[in-house]
Amino acid sequence: MTTPYDEHALRDDLRWWAAANYLTVGQIYLQSNPLLRRPLTPGDIKPRLLGHWGTSPGLSMIYALVNRRIKETDSDWLYVTGPGHGGPALVASAWLEGTYHEVYPRIGTDEEGVLRLFRQFSSPGGIPSHVSVQTPGSIHEGGELGYALVHAAGAAFDHPNLVVACVVGDGEAETGPLSASWRLPTYLNPRRDGAVLPILHLNGYKIAGPTVMGRDDDEDNLAYLRSQGWDPVVVEGDDPTEVFPAFYAALSAAHERIVALQEEARAVAGPTTPGRRSWPAIILRTPKGWTGPKEVDGRKIEGTNLAHQVPLSGVKENPEHLRMLEEWMRSYHPEELFDAEGRLVPDLRALSPDGDKRMSATPYANGGRLRTDLPLPGLPAYEVDLGGRRGTVWFENTKSSGALMRDVYAATTTPDGGGTFRLFCPDETASNRLQDVFEVTERCFMEHGEPWDSKIGPDGRVMEVLSEHLTQGWLEGYLLSGRHGFWASYEAFAMVSASMAVQHTKWLQHAQTLPWRASVSSLNILLTSTCWRNDHNGFSHQGPGLIDALMPLSPQVVRVWLPPDANTTLSITDHCLRSKDHVNVVVVDKQKHLQYLTLDEANEHCAAGAGVWEWASNGPVGETPDIVLACAGDVPTQEALAAAELLRERLPELKVRFVNVVDLMALLPENDHPHGFADSQFDEMFTASTHVVFAFHGYPRAVHQLIHGRTNPGRFHVRGFSEQGTTTTPFDMVVLNRMSRFHLVKEVLRRAGRRVSGWDELEDYCDQRLAEHHDYIREHLEDLPDISAWTWGSD
Amino acid sequence: MTTPYDEHALRDDLRWWAAANYLTVGQIYLQSNPLLRRPLTPGDIKPRLLGHWGTSPGLSMIYALVNRRIKETDSDWLYVTGPGHGGPALVASAWLEGTYHEVYPRIGTDEEGVLRLFRQFSSPGGIPSHVSVQTPGSIHEGGELGYALVHAAGAAFDHPNLVVACVVGDGEAETGPLSASWRLPTYLNPRRDGAVLPILHLNGYKIAGPTVMGRDDDEDNLAYLRSQGWDPVVVEGDDPTEVFPAFYAALSAAHERIVALQEEARAVAGPTTPGRRSWPAIILRTPKGWTGPKEVDGRKIEGTNLAHQVPLSGVKENPEHLRMLEEWMRSYHPEELFDAEGRLVPDLRALSPDGDKRMSATPYANGGRLRTDLPLPGLPAYEVDLGGRRGTVWFENTKSSGALMRDVYAATTTPDGGGTFRLFCPDETASNRLQDVFEVTERCFMEHGEPWDSKIGPDGRVMEVLSEHLTQGWLEGYLLSGRHGFWASYEAFAMVSASMAVQHTKWLQHAQTLPWRASVSSLNILLTSTCWRNDHNGFSHQGPGLIDALMPLSPQVVRVWLPPDANTTLSITDHCLRSKDHVNVVVVDKQKHLQYLTLDEANEHCAAGAGVWEWASNGPVGETPDIVLACAGDVPTQEALAAAELLRERLPELKVRFVNVVDLMALLPENDHPHGFADSQFDEMFTASTHVVFAFHGYPRAVHQLIHGRTNPGRFHVRGFSEQGTTTTPFDMVVLNRMSRFHLVKEVLRRAGRRVSGWDELEDYCDQRLAEHHDYIREHLEDLPDISAWTWGSD
Repeated sequence: MTTPYDEHALRDDLRWWAAANYLTVGQIYLQSNPLLRRPLTPGDIKPRLLGHWGTSPGLSMIYALVNRRIKETDSDWLYVTGPGHGGPALVASAWLEGTYHEVYPRIGTDEEGVLRLFRQFSSPGGIPSHVSVQTPGSIHEGGELGYALVHAAGAAFDHPNLVVACVVGDGEAETGPLSASWRLPTYLNPRRDGAVLPILHLNGYKIAGPTVMGRDDDEDNLAYLRSQGWDPVVVEGDDPTEVFPAFYAALSAAHERIVALQEEARAVAGPTTPGRRSWPAIILRTPKGWTGPKEVDGRKIEGTNLAHQVPLSGVKENPEHLRMLEEWMRSYHPEELFDAEGRLVPDLRALSPDGDKRMSATPYANGGRLRTDLPLPGLPAYEVDLGGRRGTVWFENTKSSGALMRDVYAATTTPDGGGTFRLFCPDETASNRLQDVFEVTERCFMEHGEPWDSKIGPDGRVMEVLSEHLTQGWLEGYLLSGRHGFWASYEAFAMVSASMAVQHTKWLQHAQTLPWRASVSSLNILLTSTCWRNDHNGFSHQGPGLIDALMPLSPQVVRVWLPPDANTTLSITDHCLRSKDHVNVVVVDKQKHLQYLTLDEANEHCAAGAGVWEWASNGPVGETPDIVLACAGDVPTQEALAAAELLRERLPELKVRFVNVVDLMALLPENDHPHGFADSQFDEMFTASTHVVFAFHGYPRAVHQLIHGRTNPGRFHVRGFSEQGTTTTPFDMVVLNRMSRFHLVKEVLRRAGRRVSGWDELEDYCDQRLAEHHDYIREHLEDLPDISAWTWGSD
Repeated sequence: MTTPYDEHALRDDLRWWAAANYLTVGQIYLQSNPLLRRPLTPGDIKPRLLGHWGTSPGLSMIYALVNRRIKETDSDWLYVTGPGHGGPALVASAWLEGTYHEVYPRIGTDEEGVLRLFRQFSSPGGIPSHVSVQTPGSIHEGGELGYALVHAAGAAFDHPNLVVACVVGDGEAETGPLSASWRLPTYLNPRRDGAVLPILHLNGYKIAGPTVMGRDDDEDNLAYLRSQGWDPVVVEGDDPTEVFPAFYAALSAAHERIVALQEEARAVAGPTTPGRRSWPAIILRTPKGWTGPKEVDGRKIEGTNLAHQVPLSGVKENPEHLRMLEEWMRSYHPEELFDAEGRLVPDLRALSPDGDKRMSATPYANGGRLRTDLPLPGLPAYEVDLGGRRGTVWFENTKSSGALMRDVYAATTTPDGGGTFRLFCPDETASNRLQDVFEVTERCFMEHGEPWDSKIGPDGRVMEVLSEHLTQGWLEGYLLSGRHGFWASYEAFAMVSASMAVQHTKWLQHAQTLPWRASVSSLNILLTSTCWRNDHNGFSHQGPGLIDALMPLSPQVVRVWLPPDANTTLSITDHCLRSKDHVNVVVVDKQKHLQYLTLDEANEHCAAGAGVWEWASNGPVGETPDIVLACAGDVPTQEALAAAELLRERLPELKVRFVNVVDLMALLPENDHPHGFADSQFDEMFTASTHVVFAFHGYPRAVHQLIHGRTNPGRFHVRGFSEQGTTTTPFDMVVLNRMSRFHLVKEVLRRAGRRVSGWDELEDYCDQRLAEHHDYIREHLEDLPDISAWTWGSD
């Protein structure tokens, strides 16, 4: 199916490449005279030169040749640009394909459009210098490096007809996440998945010095990739007339090999044959700043780190630099590339694929166009029965959500073994009590099995590898290309990939401002194995910090859910699976907890976000209470309920209002977050002046930051995780962090509006219980009791 | 220098290993009858079985054989346990060496001591189940996986006589940070550095399934390591009588090769010869749960993931399990290992090295014992002159700190080219304006150079690689083994390794509670290239979130510094280089900024933490002002000063008090942080009731969370980074985030206690300037002005 790459093809591609390079240089330098209709003057030069030339020509060459391959084979390709600095190159390509004008009508396809394209680049009110959400055809922001291959992989999963060309820069190749992501062949199934074609682009330098792989021998680089499941070839050179044909040959061979691997796997009925496939890859060595100035002021530029950003920096003041820039730009012969109106000449326009086949226009990069709603079952089948009385049944809070996910898997699996939903988790799916999914699928693993392996194999679609970066990044790529999923992690270790969640939030925030970007499914983060119940794992496993890391980000994107029991968790899970364009953080523990709400109550409570639990309150409804006892999170709710019970029993005259918060963002003022309660609503719930004793899942001051601006926030007294942790009992954890039922009661006694009878006795009782606990911990090494008795704080 | 590993050696080592394994199993299971003086009963079994058996026997075997090597060669070794789950194995080894009793006198060396050792393990009031700060001989917490090799490398840098045996688990090998850290040979100099001997322990499984490298062929694993600069061998087997000699032979050969590489490099005078050395490494394949139960209830256990934690879980209730446990423990023949008093028999005790040569007692793992204060020069030589008037000189805020670091390098470099101070930075040292260090050293890179390379070579001691994980992790290892350093990063990308900073903070928090751990130098994090001045890089580069991630952690450890100019930055840098046991986060931009304080003033201001700047205030000192204008951070200070100037000039009657905060933790109540101001001090500065308009570097609500509990916190009106970012001008950044001088003035007008003449005119003026700016941004694409004019807000 491959026609020879003859001199005509070469000539055409070199001219298209020249156009892309010309537009790249123009974006960096020019504010007028865009097509060099007259000699350049200092006034044509932008006042501030920003942008990255170094990686751009390589990116454009790859783009040109993939385009040829698309045209030749009518195949679907997505382009992931690891070297995000090559922003202008990708913008240029999108303009050359006509997409840019389609999504940004203001940027025309004529000379005026070229000028606007140049002027908007890296300018106020314009577009960023990196490949970004604003770049058509991108699912990958080129700012924080490391995630090119995981995003590419996520897009390829369950898209059997897609090939993702993923350019990896040799700078990015030094990062942790990128290094780990070369293991993809262990997880990529040729039967149901598309392919990723990594193009490791060694231009040899990062900002200030050489790169490791750039300086390494080919032999080492080939061995490195081969050892992880790739079958790489090297394409190298600085003469475009040699490199283009060589790269196209490598590209075509790689594509043919991909198709062959897939056809082989798809021809066989039944389960996929185990065994990691050897996937093609290309190592490309071309000079940094290729076709740019070779030397400036006596220093070598092309092929060094000095070509990284703006190779001629003095053009506005230095006539010699200006002359060199003009010479450089004219070397691309713009007069042959653009017609009298400034439009790309037709034979070059004809080199691009049509419509959605253009990589800048592919719906795979605008996943909302491919997304379909999940066929979600009704929730009643998963309801946990309260056993006739609230707070008497023990149940794993995440387990019924696992059952829901099982049925989502079942309902979305396609005949080829693919689907539109996956669960991603670093080696903890069962540990996180989501094991019901293994009734219908297993863990994905291409390598050979052993007889004692359980729930693991090539056709599994639960994605487990011991890396938060890989699992979260795969999901991000999966979502941005139009599918659905959940990422589950130990709460503390979600911080490992917190920066990815931050960057994804930024992406979604800006995507919402772009009408041409269709809505995608939310990034759903389930934090189980929480700080309060990692008593067996100790302090390193105890950290609720992801809440604090994400809370300050865009209120249009961030949601934090703290369901107190299984039915609320189920309701929230269902909500998350319907939600779009958000980052949902759901924090709930996997262990057995007491159950409080029926499913109907849970749905109502979650929809409200927060509310009074009358059954746990004491005193006439509507009357101003003596104290508000509030809580958010499962363990805090348990302790607050126990405190409320103590108060009801021992101080029946005290009016206690019990408030539970499930949607943390409800605490923010309504102007600060779409879920924020109006002040009137907030005051109705918490009153305007009564003291509030608040048991909170995370760091206590997180609540204080949220309630700034509310009526009299100084009356909120928050207890939460205060970084007191170790290997101990669950009850000792709440004692160490001063959030136990006894601490809450003592705080109530300190803050309540009036004394009632039984006051001193109750305080003594709490002190006594805490003293007993203290003695127990201090003494227990001498006299080890059954600590399980403390697991639920038997009182 | 190697004596043959004969049958006597084998017999001895197997017996020592049996003792270690016995003590490991005992820790997991027993609460009485520690030496099986009588048959096991259910009452001997702990009520809750916690701990990880799977990886432990392998760890103990390596420990035993490294001990033999230490004794044989009188060399210095440090043991880094990547598989942190093997906590009980390392605790057992430390007990066998006598160190455990030395640092924890309560745990004796007799039978009573064994019992206490068992009972404290993974118990309330006891020790964590992972290798942790409490484990003698450890510089590495085995909770969050991925950092074994970087911590090992950090300890080896500039410790020419140290060999770090670094066990890497095959689970951990799947993480990003660990994957990237195999590139160490590119950065390890045999002349001045010690060595790292990686032992990749493939026991084949993580929690729930097989590992990638465990299932890969030896050929792939060997090629993977070889391609990155290692010369690995495989040792494999399940018969200890074969594996022990094979591993010892591999270990001895590796050690000899290390010594040879070092001798070769050290024999040559002058610069180190470039070229990455090929360092030895060992791949060890032994069964998970080796020597434990082979099969339980008909399921294969040894050699599968089922051996990961507690292989016999039903021992308390199931007599058959109890019988198997007893059989298993007796298979180690405790009666031959411990004497009548329960002490380790003398011939086994004699197998351990003596004193500080014991890996559990080495000062390399208790770096405070090796640490010496830095010879810091006086600061006056680096003072930036104010040019006669505050706020008129432009200077890069980080540059003089770079000059200080240069001189610290110079003063600490040793004749062999090593030293006690290093700067670590992901490829941005010069970009961060710390380039003065290159006057005395260069970037470290072992591979061959090119003529156009600049400031890079094998003898360089600035550590650059494009990975936050590697650079920060190397520094952590460097500090914990007794040295000094700084880590500089783009502010936004410090979030990439935020979880490492969290874990290091936890380490230091607990280390402070252990009298035997000597104080180490602080982890100094310099965040330059901040959100306000990444206007050219765009939104992905704009994020002050590390402050929010670290602020909630231990007040005994966390410090956040926001110096407003170069002399304050210098003062803080000097402070950080003296400080111990803290995590210092210093946030200051690298660009040219206005300069405000002399060095003397800077020192005084930084020591105070926060204070009134009378020269920027308006109105009589001591009188209650109409408004407090406060700020923290360089750009906020600039905008607040500009606002103060507008107010002085246009509303001279308005009494404005100007407060600058450099030590963010000063805002916390004194009970909540050692730097927290007393309420009286706080109220003296901010008054008790005057409104405060606060310009803050980071997310505004971070301030709100800090000031909860202060007098009337609702009067604080904070402007800061509100996640509004893109590629734009510096001034547009402060406008977008509503922190510009004009926004601050308008907020003052809204909040000030009384109106004075000129009020409406000033408000109109601000509105007009903001409208002009808005028009400028909206229109500028049509008429691109010189945006540099906006760089400093010319107004």
